[in-house]
Amino acid sequence: MIKITLPDGSVKSFEKDSTPMDVAKSISEGLARNIISASFNGTTVETSTQLTTDGSLILYSWKNDEGKKAFWHSSAHVLAQAIEELYPKSKLTIGPAIDNGFYYDVDFGDETITDKDFKTIENKMLEIARGKHEFAMRSVTKADALSLYKDNEYKTELIENLEDGTITFCDHATFTDLCRGGHIPNTGIIKAVKILSVAGAYWRGDENKPQLTRVYGTSFPKQKELTEYLHLLEEAKKRDHRKLGKELELFTFSQKVGAGLPLWLPKGAALRERLEDFLKAAQKKAGYEMVVTPHIGQKELYVTSGHYEKYGADSFQPITTPKEGEEFLLKPMNCPHHCEIYNSMQWSYKDLPKRFAEFGTVYRYEQSGELHGLTRVRGFTQDDAHIFCTPDQLDQEFKNVIDLVLYVFGSLGFENFTAQVSLRDPEKPEKYIGSLENWEKAEQAIINAAKDKNLNYVIETGEAAFYGPKLDFMVKDALGRQWQLGTIQVDYNLPERFELSYKGSDNESHRPVMIHRAPFGSMERFIAILLEHTGGNFPLWLMPNQVSILTLSEKYEKYGQNVLTLLENHEIRALVDNRSETIGKKIREAEMSKTPYMIIIGEQEEAENMISVRQHGGEDLGTISVDTFAEIVKTEINKTKRQF
Amino acid sequence: MIKITLPDGSVKSFEKDSTPMDVAKSISEGLARNIISASFNGTTVETSTQLTTDGSLILYSWKNDEGKKAFWHSSAHVLAQAIEELYPKSKLTIGPAIDNGFYYDVDFGDETITDKDFKTIENKMLEIARGKHEFAMRSVTKADALSLYKDNEYKTELIENLEDGTITFCDHATFTDLCRGGHIPNTGIIKAVKILSVAGAYWRGDENKPQLTRVYGTSFPKQKELTEYLHLLEEAKKRDHRKLGKELELFTFSQKVGAGLPLWLPKGAALRERLEDFLKAAQKKAGYEMVVTPHIGQKELYVTSGHYEKYGADSFQPITTPKEGEEFLLKPMNCPHHCEIYNSMQWSYKDLPKRFAEFGTVYRYEQSGELHGLTRVRGFTQDDAHIFCTPDQLDQEFKNVIDLVLYVFGSLGFENFTAQVSLRDPEKPEKYIGSLENWEKAEQAIINAAKDKNLNYVIETGEAAFYGPKLDFMVKDALGRQWQLGTIQVDYNLPERFELSYKGSDNESHRPVMIHRAPFGSMERFIAILLEHTGGNFPLWLMPNQVSILTLSEKYEKYGQNVLTLLENHEIRALVDNRSETIGKKIREAEMSKTPYMIIIGEQEEAENMISVRQHGGEDLGTISVDTFAEIVKTEINKTKRQF
Repeated sequence: MIKITLPDGSVKSFEKDSTPMDVAKSISEGLARNIISASFNGTTVETSTQLTTDGSLILYSWKNDEGKKAFWHSSAHVLAQAIEELYPKSKLTIGPAIDNGFYYDVDFGDETITDKDFKTIENKMLEIARGKHEFAMRSVTKADALSLYKDNEYKTELIENLEDGTITFCDHATFTDLCRGGHIPNTGIIKAVKILSVAGAYWRGDENKPQLTRVYGTSFPKQKELTEYLHLLEEAKKRDHRKLGKELELFTFSQKVGAGLPLWLPKGAALRERLEDFLKAAQKKAGYEMVVTPHIGQKELYVTSGHYEKYGADSFQPITTPKEGEEFLLKPMNCPHHCEIYNSMQWSYKDLPKRFAEFGTVYRYEQSGELHGLTRVRGFTQDDAHIFCTPDQLDQEFKNVIDLVLYVFGSLGFENFTAQVSLRDPEKPEKYIGSLENWEKAEQAIINAAKDKNLNYVIETGEAAFYGPKLDFMVKDALGRQWQLGTIQVDYNLPERFELSYKGSDNESHRPVMIHRAPFGSMERFIAILLEHTGGNFPLWLMPNQVSILTLSEKYEKYGQNVLTLLENHEIRALVDNRSETIGKKIREAEMSKTPYMIIIGEQEEAENMISVRQHGGEDLGTISVDTFAEIVKTEINKTKRQF
Repeated sequence: MIKITLPDGSVKSFEKDSTPMDVAKSISEGLARNIISASFNGTTVETSTQLTTDGSLILYSWKNDEGKKAFWHSSAHVLAQAIEELYPKSKLTIGPAIDNGFYYDVDFGDETITDKDFKTIENKMLEIARGKHEFAMRSVTKADALSLYKDNEYKTELIENLEDGTITFCDHATFTDLCRGGHIPNTGIIKAVKILSVAGAYWRGDENKPQLTRVYGTSFPKQKELTEYLHLLEEAKKRDHRKLGKELELFTFSQKVGAGLPLWLPKGAALRERLEDFLKAAQKKAGYEMVVTPHIGQKELYVTSGHYEKYGADSFQPITTPKEGEEFLLKPMNCPHHCEIYNSMQWSYKDLPKRFAEFGTVYRYEQSGELHGLTRVRGFTQDDAHIFCTPDQLDQEFKNVIDLVLYVFGSLGFENFTAQVSLRDPEKPEKYIGSLENWEKAEQAIINAAKDKNLNYVIETGEAAFYGPKLDFMVKDALGRQWQLGTIQVDYNLPERFELSYKGSDNESHRPVMIHRAPFGSMERFIAILLEHTGGNFPLWLMPNQVSILTLSEKYEKYGQNVLTLLENHEIRALVDNRSETIGKKIREAEMSKTPYMIIIGEQEEAENMISVRQHGGEDLGTISVDTFAEIVKTEINKTKRQF
């Protein structure tokens, strides 16, 4: 008999050589039907692996990431078998599970695979899947392994790098592959498959080695899930912020300026400014004060802050001066500068909290291959602020910051979010700077605030920054994708390093506590996510241009200008399109630019002193007065923008 | 007889050996009384120098810079004589005229000179001056010169570096000095003298050589002029922007961040933002669009623009990346980035002009010894814009920019200015990039615009930037000092280098013309000058805090908040000072921070629903209603802020 410990802590005895599936069945038949993967003592095993010792077992279903991984790993085997059967001359190389699917890198020899072939491959895969073949692992000697793959130089190279005694194969149906394990019980669970694309890929990622064809696919236990996923992919493609950014003329990149350094075009700059003004107004009410600091600082500044030690070697390298041998760094963070501002004056406890805010542009080196649109860049503007307060004020300040973040999310249509409280890994104290006592105080303050504000939060141990614990907001967008947005961090360390102080009511010198916070995170990343969340249909209050006044012909320019003035009196942002273009073209272009309302004016409208209004997407609001229209706009704005 | 050409082009004959003073007398006795210096064929001469050949003569009075130079140079001789008589053991070294006065570097041996000694020196100088001693130049041999100064190692060193036959001495009264010439007729013209300060100075500026005492002084032909100058000095000291910046808590510097890199404190950042918003609003009306670009760019970008070739070696050095061997530069100018924005889209002549504006922070290396407050920094924010237009649009665009600049100056109280049109030096074509034809077109456009806008302008040949001609505004501040503020430059060169184009009405591709312009110049320098111009009493519309509401005791907080709300409804910016401090202290602090209006509220004001108002500087406006007060404020704002 062996003793199996389950995740709930319960321990059960089983016959030696029982499998994870036996354990599942002993709990319930329903559970057994859903179990597709398992891990034993922290190692992935098959559901059919015979357990020979005591140990901890976790059972995974499709709902778990581990279950999905086994599902897609197994699907890659099925893809490989399908390819081998359809293209007997092809040579298989490697085929891992990835996020949302799997791929297989294949040397197709002379043959070229195009999307015309995808259906055939899918059908062959489904045919194999329907055979309900079980996956069976077995050990092989290095000699036997090399013998099986004597005509496949890729697998041969892989096997030669493995040690004899550690080599395993996986069999299913008539197909065998070199494999480390981790499969679903049988192929029959795979009900829906889709080949998504093919791409070139070098063997082992080395451009001096042969080029292979990477076949991307995904698979699901239900056809409905595949359909939904493909719809999501389609939507995500349409909402890709890089595509929308171009269509809406928001931003661009220039090879000469450099990769990862966005240039904000007029419409994008206006959007940014509107978002900044929105946050500035709320911050003013919340008692923040704006400051402005340079984009460089002496290396010494970052030696003091600890950033140089931590990041120096992997960052943009120091800037030297021609004569005086000075060394400056592009600022990777604004905090050292704000600490120096704090230090430029004397403070009493009566002056605190001080809340210094700055839309501070920082620069961080990323490898060019890692860059992606506005979400992964080399220069970005943080909606940064640092709060310097007494330890007594920390709890309340942290709660105030949460209120501000919730106001920002609410006004921008992010209704669905969770919070992640990142604490230190108590087992790796060497990863963090600062005293244990301070860490504990800070962690408790965050947890208290999250509870008090009724946040739906999870605690992630070991995810803290090196200088302090933090609370991050994880936001779900309209496509159900999760993004990290908005961060609040407690910091007891920079106040030490910069020797910050204030005079307490006891007339003694004390250290303030520091909070770093950024509700947007960065303007670049936030706008990218907002674009993908809204598909470019921003909340009405945020739209740089809320209304386009389209004239039926140039004759109506004067009336158009009158309407514009009336709207501006209502504080509605509008423009007149009086080009000598057809009204059809004007409407199409206003639709393309996601303008929320189009006002169409011609002879009748001018005669009646009315306007014809059309909403983005086509709904006709009829012919109404400017005042009635202004009320509609104001009502819509009040629906989306919160009160702070 | 010799022929003398005067500046008006007239030629007159004089006896050989006539002096400049003889020439002056031949014109009028009144002129002769005012003439204190002269230049003959481009070389400074004495008014008593005998002219032996034909040539061009210019006569200088105290009103000319050349006249002042001779006056102060001669005064330095008088200072030297006074020191020699008062301190017989001292050794004289060198003593030049400088802006607004002169100095003499002296080795006083064991003696120390302090401000207690100034009066004695001044009296001795005046005593010498009253002797009306003439200055007489004579040539001496090197041997005789060395013999005279055998006990003065400093003069000996100077003489040893001169060639025999070129050495001249100047005598006046009983005093002789090694001297190249350029004196006033006699010491009697010096009516008022002031020793201003003493400072340490190394012989020949070399810290390894002996330390001397530099005695600074100034002198004037009238006591009244000295009094006025000393008053100006006093005022300038009070208005020094570094002093006011500290007192008003506008900005600070940090050794750790680095010299020349200002940190803007909350009040300074608010002032900056208000100035930016003011210009943004005007720019919006004038059809500018804001853009945002990064603070770095690949080195290649500046190679393309030509900036690297011109400035690279003397600038902040390139930033490298750890893995990919890229090279970036801190941007010294925003124009290359704006060119790349222009290049990111296709343009038709119908789209032009495009006007891209950005408050763009740029970085330029200056030696640390050259840095000065906010006027000479290493990082500064330009109120930059680039206009891309067709050649036909250039004249009108240039005029529009002048209108904008005049609006800015008018609204900020700079009423007194001239324009300087900087053209190329036609004799040094190698200093400039771009074709001659383009230069001529651009220069003509600027001159036309300056004429059309009735600017009071001077043309400065050879003062153009290397990439194009420009128009700079030279503004006189309240103390009569001249500052260069606001610049407009035509550029035909960057459009070539960046291959900018637009499609003309002929359907062909054409090059646009570019205008660079910055009405403020830089936020840092402009704010420094505005501080010194206004002494911190900014125009009311600009004041971040226009009104301080001071409570007589904490009991009146609620009424104070009510008054604040009423003022905010009138769009007046105010704050409530409800600290438990005496009203005297609250008033003093509000005065210190230059708050334009103080509202004082107590029992009586609350009971009557009125406010007591006091203006900055002390004037009592009595007890009035909030509405009456709001009208006073609005009237004052309308007096200072122009309409655009």
